[in-house]
Amino acid sequence: MAKQVPSIPNGTRDFSPEVMLRRNYIFDTIRDVFSKYGFMPLETPAMENLSTLMGKYGEEGDKLLFRILDSGDFIKKYKAVKVEELFTTIKRLNKNCIELKSEKVQKTLIKRFLDYQPKDNKELLADIKREVVDELLNEGIVRKIVNNNDVKYEGSLAKEDLKKIVQEKVREKFKAIAKDAVGYERGLRYDLTVPFARYVVQHQSEITFPFKRYQIQPVWRADRPQKGRYREFYQCDVDVIGSTSMISELELIQIVDEVFRRLGIRVLLKINNRKILYGIAETIGFADKMIDITVAIDKLDKIGLEAVNAELQERGISAEAVEMLQPILSLEGTNREKLAKIAQIISGSETGLKGVDEMSRVLDYVEAVGVELPIELDLSLARGLNYYTGAIFEVKALDYQIGSISGGGRYDDLTGIFGLPGMSGVGISFGADRIYDVMLGLDLFPNDAQTTTEVLFVNFGGAEEIESLKVMRKLRERGYKCEIYPEAVKMKKQMDYANRRAIPYVAIIGESERADGKVVIKRMSDGTQNVYSVGEELENGLQDFVVI
Amino acid sequence: MAKQVPSIPNGTRDFSPEVMLRRNYIFDTIRDVFSKYGFMPLETPAMENLSTLMGKYGEEGDKLLFRILDSGDFIKKYKAVKVEELFTTIKRLNKNCIELKSEKVQKTLIKRFLDYQPKDNKELLADIKREVVDELLNEGIVRKIVNNNDVKYEGSLAKEDLKKIVQEKVREKFKAIAKDAVGYERGLRYDLTVPFARYVVQHQSEITFPFKRYQIQPVWRADRPQKGRYREFYQCDVDVIGSTSMISELELIQIVDEVFRRLGIRVLLKINNRKILYGIAETIGFADKMIDITVAIDKLDKIGLEAVNAELQERGISAEAVEMLQPILSLEGTNREKLAKIAQIISGSETGLKGVDEMSRVLDYVEAVGVELPIELDLSLARGLNYYTGAIFEVKALDYQIGSISGGGRYDDLTGIFGLPGMSGVGISFGADRIYDVMLGLDLFPNDAQTTTEVLFVNFGGAEEIESLKVMRKLRERGYKCEIYPEAVKMKKQMDYANRRAIPYVAIIGESERADGKVVIKRMSDGTQNVYSVGEELENGLQDFVVI
Repeated sequence: MAKQVPSIPNGTRDFSPEVMLRRNYIFDTIRDVFSKYGFMPLETPAMENLSTLMGKYGEEGDKLLFRILDSGDFIKKYKAVKVEELFTTIKRLNKNCIELKSEKVQKTLIKRFLDYQPKDNKELLADIKREVVDELLNEGIVRKIVNNNDVKYEGSLAKEDLKKIVQEKVREKFKAIAKDAVGYERGLRYDLTVPFARYVVQHQSEITFPFKRYQIQPVWRADRPQKGRYREFYQCDVDVIGSTSMISELELIQIVDEVFRRLGIRVLLKINNRKILYGIAETIGFADKMIDITVAIDKLDKIGLEAVNAELQERGISAEAVEMLQPILSLEGTNREKLAKIAQIISGSETGLKGVDEMSRVLDYVEAVGVELPIELDLSLARGLNYYTGAIFEVKALDYQIGSISGGGRYDDLTGIFGLPGMSGVGISFGADRIYDVMLGLDLFPNDAQTTTEVLFVNFGGAEEIESLKVMRKLRERGYKCEIYPEAVKMKKQMDYANRRAIPYVAIIGESERADGKVVIKRMSDGTQNVYSVGEELENGLQDFVVI
Repeated sequence: MAKQVPSIPNGTRDFSPEVMLRRNYIFDTIRDVFSKYGFMPLETPAMENLSTLMGKYGEEGDKLLFRILDSGDFIKKYKAVKVEELFTTIKRLNKNCIELKSEKVQKTLIKRFLDYQPKDNKELLADIKREVVDELLNEGIVRKIVNNNDVKYEGSLAKEDLKKIVQEKVREKFKAIAKDAVGYERGLRYDLTVPFARYVVQHQSEITFPFKRYQIQPVWRADRPQKGRYREFYQCDVDVIGSTSMISELELIQIVDEVFRRLGIRVLLKINNRKILYGIAETIGFADKMIDITVAIDKLDKIGLEAVNAELQERGISAEAVEMLQPILSLEGTNREKLAKIAQIISGSETGLKGVDEMSRVLDYVEAVGVELPIELDLSLARGLNYYTGAIFEVKALDYQIGSISGGGRYDDLTGIFGLPGMSGVGISFGADRIYDVMLGLDLFPNDAQTTTEVLFVNFGGAEEIESLKVMRKLRERGYKCEIYPEAVKMKKQMDYANRRAIPYVAIIGESERADGKVVIKRMSDGTQNVYSVGEELENGLQDFVVI
């Protein structure tokens, strides 16, 4: 085969060990916090039926779906199978005995089959025959009689009944193949929310509600790759579905608080409520333009008040209405003060007041339980996703310039599209790539999140090598991560390896050490070295010296 | 939108929380052991260029690749971009000030690029403009001067030089887009070995060899789904590449030993060496038929000696040669005894004796260091994959009927196909799905691998609810996983929730408990309940009672 220059597709990434260790540190922390709040892991397949994905992300989103194709040959193979004709001949059936092996039966079957695709069907035929017979055996419909090399199947059903059963089974199998062979019908998941909604509806009878799940998996978007925008990236979602209690909002806030505290990132949580936004739209006389209004004021941070006002008018909001919005956009004071003022302003909107009430309840909970992160009620926070209907959240890093590193909100009808209306839920998503950038930028990764091997044993070959292997076994039993350089090459090469791998300690059992039953442990950062007797002195003593 | 009945593609699976917890238990155990031996995590993208994948898995494998298509619209969109229009607005260029807008520049650049139809280019145009200017700024080629609403870019380069740089940057971006728009060129990874080889070659200059990596990610195969065969499944590979030392074989054996010991699965490790198999083929006069011979004798377990002999002859091995094989296929005794006998039999084969030597060295290491699992030298073990050239392994569960649950071997030239010859390595793969089945079948999953929430707080609403939330905060700080039922519904419903979620403890802070500063903790399995004072008594006392 020709030599190839290897590369990976545009917009995708390899995660090297160094990067993986840091990423895992983030994911492990998040996972650990999620589980302390009773959230459970869920995984869904990378590919979903296109019908599950299409129409869920807007027109633009549909365009960004990666579609999956079976290999052309595979599709051809199955499309070529004419289902109806297959099973009319699939077996010789008689009252008590299916004889699969006889020359005659085989000929009948194979002839029909070969008419379609005289290449791959052998295997398929064999598979289906075996599966059907297995099912007949498992269901006790027939039993197997082996007599020398002759295999027979006996049962008590009338010939016609047995035939019907076999035909039905074969028909089912071919239906599945035919359905599958349509091809072009699957796509890679675009986010974790739609698969989650699909899962909840599909498994509603098995799920115990309220259902608290988290999901950490990659998603794919056929977007134009550029800095910070990838075609494959991880999402990290946590949701409660099946409850309208504001305790869920509290839990998510507590999770945000704990995750970022443990990661060492100082953050600000911005919070708002879509019902309040609706109340505002209603109050200024443009309830039907709520989306336009939220889209415009969402840009307040980026483009400033003047530009927002201009955009509002472009979007058909009257000058008077824009005027009415001004005090709202420039509300100041504590969260409680802002909330009191907005309650007055939108007092004519029932939905708006419900939003105020929800927000107030969330603040009550937060104050009662206490969280460490600052929370800011921001009435210009709108978040793009249309399915939000209640609380909305966004988390900003305080010490690093980057977009929001986490965000989410409450939705009332995520599963309606799949036939299960009225399921309220609330969720939040952590942006792993941005969190990674923040932590790297602020140097927040602890050393032990960046190290694998703690101690490298230098390899001197011979009896010293064997002694090292024995000592390592003991150390691993004590939980130490260690390895030996696999070959007895020059010391310099081995030390280079330790340096390049950033292994913090090196162990030496040379000839003289071995003769004395000793091991030398050297700390690479400052060159300090301790000598231990092999055995308990080493195994116990190491914990004071080896600090990662 | 129309109501849809949700389902997932044939051959894929949702992993429910119950299943995920158990799967994570397996993966976490494996990962933990890997890291104790100095192996580092690696992740590669789900999609690889088709050229990376094609021709690596044989003809049948090529057919089983899932190919990826961008959405047709997406391709059209980018093909539709009339590049010329880009530069019409790109900004002013002159000696000190880039005016990319000038008519002249436009024309020059325009013609260079494609003749596509204008449609969606606004967005793309904006992106590229911004990216090019960002790069110019970042590289210090120009600086930005903002004067009221007027933005200018100043720099010290001559106009023509600057123009060249800008043109080059734009050209690069369009090349990438054009390359990308070709589409049809990617596929989902089929295994983890080929992406690993691709990674090693692509990043050879950054990698410190010997490179010890593990990789736990899903792979996709467009195979016909059936029981135990999925279209998406996880592989779990661990490899050392860049060393020929048998210490690597030892390490993999130690890892197998420790992983299965920790999972509680009693296993047998079968081991053989491809060089010995070659030596046998050579000895019986059919060196060129080594693959045929190994394929046939690999079936010894399944079809028996007679059938193997028949197949050998079918494959063109003479009756005399088959006769010569008989003592080898029925070798008995300890591993050392078998090895001594085979060394005599194949003493005329240099390669064969090298294999004996390798095997002997592995046994030396294993005996010196000591492992607990039984190891059996099995000369009929061949393993299908053609790239193995040295040691081969296979792990069987002793107490459960299932195929091998782990396997691997040494290869001498995995990366040659990508242009990096002579990289020897050895690896082993753990079969997560089968390990799962064994553990479930033998009831080996510990309780704490199947529980998320340890304590459910019953919700009585009002002040009791708030008190519960406060207590939970403290317990979580102590590491307990707890949650409160989000609504103050009937006790029965809440207890049902605890039961269905298999939450082992329930906490009650009702009105009277709260008044007394107490909390009742009830063990669901036997109904035992303890009463604690809220505060340290609870936080410290719980560890004696709450045992998961």
